[in-house]
Amino acid sequence: MAASSEDWSEEELRLEKEHFKKIVNAYLYYKAYGYLQIEKMKKNYHLLPERHKDLLKDYPSHIEKCKEAIDANFEFIKGVVSNAIGFLNNSDVSDFSWEDAQCQVVPATCFDMEKVVTTIKQFYRDWSKEGEKERELCYDPIITQLKKYFPPSDCDVSSVKVLVPGSGLGRLAFDIAHLGYCCEGNEFSMYMLLASNFMLNKNDGTELHTVHPWALKTCNNLEYSHQLSSIKIPDVNPSELPQYGLFSMSAGDFLQVYTEKDQWDCIACCFFIDTAHNVIEYIENIYKILKPGGLWINFGPLLYHFADMPGETSLELSWEDIKRISCKIGFEIMTETLNCPSYYIQHPQSMIQLCYNSVLLVAKKPSPKLTTPE
Amino acid sequence: MAASSEDWSEEELRLEKEHFKKIVNAYLYYKAYGYLQIEKMKKNYHLLPERHKDLLKDYPSHIEKCKEAIDANFEFIKGVVSNAIGFLNNSDVSDFSWEDAQCQVVPATCFDMEKVVTTIKQFYRDWSKEGEKERELCYDPIITQLKKYFPPSDCDVSSVKVLVPGSGLGRLAFDIAHLGYCCEGNEFSMYMLLASNFMLNKNDGTELHTVHPWALKTCNNLEYSHQLSSIKIPDVNPSELPQYGLFSMSAGDFLQVYTEKDQWDCIACCFFIDTAHNVIEYIENIYKILKPGGLWINFGPLLYHFADMPGETSLELSWEDIKRISCKIGFEIMTETLNCPSYYIQHPQSMIQLCYNSVLLVAKKPSPKLTTPE
Repeated sequence: MAASSEDWSEEELRLEKEHFKKIVNAYLYYKAYGYLQIEKMKKNYHLLPERHKDLLKDYPSHIEKCKEAIDANFEFIKGVVSNAIGFLNNSDVSDFSWEDAQCQVVPATCFDMEKVVTTIKQFYRDWSKEGEKERELCYDPIITQLKKYFPPSDCDVSSVKVLVPGSGLGRLAFDIAHLGYCCEGNEFSMYMLLASNFMLNKNDGTELHTVHPWALKTCNNLEYSHQLSSIKIPDVNPSELPQYGLFSMSAGDFLQVYTEKDQWDCIACCFFIDTAHNVIEYIENIYKILKPGGLWINFGPLLYHFADMPGETSLELSWEDIKRISCKIGFEIMTETLNCPSYYIQHPQSMIQLCYNSVLLVAKKPSPKLTTPE
Repeated sequence: MAASSEDWSEEELRLEKEHFKKIVNAYLYYKAYGYLQIEKMKKNYHLLPERHKDLLKDYPSHIEKCKEAIDANFEFIKGVVSNAIGFLNNSDVSDFSWEDAQCQVVPATCFDMEKVVTTIKQFYRDWSKEGEKERELCYDPIITQLKKYFPPSDCDVSSVKVLVPGSGLGRLAFDIAHLGYCCEGNEFSMYMLLASNFMLNKNDGTELHTVHPWALKTCNNLEYSHQLSSIKIPDVNPSELPQYGLFSMSAGDFLQVYTEKDQWDCIACCFFIDTAHNVIEYIENIYKILKPGGLWINFGPLLYHFADMPGETSLELSWEDIKRISCKIGFEIMTETLNCPSYYIQHPQSMIQLCYNSVLLVAKKPSPKLTTPE
């Protein structure tokens, strides 16, 4: 897996390198960022009147355990980042070493740190035993439809080409490849790409790392142990696939990377279409790159990513409009199920649960009708 | 209902007046704020390629309907604000007229506008037929416990003094008073106070106003009609209470307004304790102002309001710690139920549902043990 840099201008390569350095810096700032929260917890404790401190004799040891959880997460992050140097194809990234990166860390924005924290939590969803329930609710409906329309018993699934845009840490694409399909994941976020590169290409075994996904979550805890709970990842060996060459990952913007007509048997989108500036462009492109007779499987809500970002284009259509437009573009709706409950990186015992009433859609790009000779 | 200004310094009165003016300004900025979103929708539509506009022939009329919903909300807001002038006790608020307020509107911060938008949505929760389900999940468990320990069949409920701190738009306190208990609501937020003052004191009848709580919600809509859906408020007549003088509201900080020992038979907190800088102070004060034998009923999650606010003290305890500390302070736990599903201003058909696994706690301040003479 590598970012493609063919035909890139020098300016584009320079910008990509800057972006890469920014992401590496944000990852490496995680420890200092976490420690700021520890300092805040300590300060708030010390400001308490003595009688309250007496009521909270175990609280300082809880703070210490939070710090240890941050340390453990940072050890994992170092694994991600040290394996990322050399991730770009650019020849001139060689002047940027792992040692330099560690020495030169500067504070990252809250926005960037949210991305780092979310990426760590994403390992819960994609690569832990504990995340199985989330995957069952989100990935299983997609895989069930895939197997229904391309049954392993009836066809050579290794010749069925499946694309998973917005593949995140790669588990859905991996699971599809594991079933024998020829599957490619595509991801735009460099945070996700560095993390999935590490997980998929540098790990041979199970339960190799310990991560505390909720280390910084101080609200809505029934018990402190929930905040501190750890996962051992990965739950399956990412290096074990039944057949070599059936699984790949690509980096870049879905609209720019995939432009060739009639290429894919199936495009499986999970929590993806709402990442668009203009969701119609996504649907048009999905239609274009599907083979005639190919399937679009969609699962997720409509939490448009650019909705609240100043200066960003964002078209926020309702589901009824998306469905109508998909038909206008040419899709035939095969299946539509509304209100599929699904969760996104939620601690199962948290006092707050964000539940998405997702939509499952299966739509077909029709095969050209045969003209019957008169 | 009025903010008490006894014993306030001139500086405090000046600050309160400034704060009041800021809130009035934010309310009156709602229309311009909503129109900014309309302009953004229009701009994003006009930037679309012609073939996409052709696919979205009805979208401009949807934008127009959103604008009408904002207009309707603003009509309601004008009712709230025009009735708020004179809300403060301060004599020198007389130099601030409704006409002046309308002429002098300046842009408010996003933070303040979020408060206005939330207050409008709060009318869905507290004063609409449609919000009944939310109230059933949050208010009914509290009322059930109140009736269990102070049964209307066994005692003169009009002599049972119930305090509802964090009373928001006042429905829980109103419903308790409606059952015949002597109930006082207390609220700190001036946004809520102006809105509840209007609802409780200036409305005699039902379905007097039309409000569109989700007018600005452009994400996670199955249909545009969900975004545009309206409620008619109030669902019950706020002026109809069985007995005069059983219901009151107070304005101000719970810790400052309620300082006298042994005053209340019951303190009912719904989504309240996590509004504290230091939740232990709240629990201590609840214990102090309860009569011996009095009850604390608590319902809600632990979404600490100051958790992410820079520079604010915030002690973020787990539920197990809160329970332990409550016992240390002197409470006897009567009932504890974890994981009570409950919602907070959620459109029931939205593709995103924030569910709180709330805790229901009933705890008793023990009566002094009688010393048996030897």
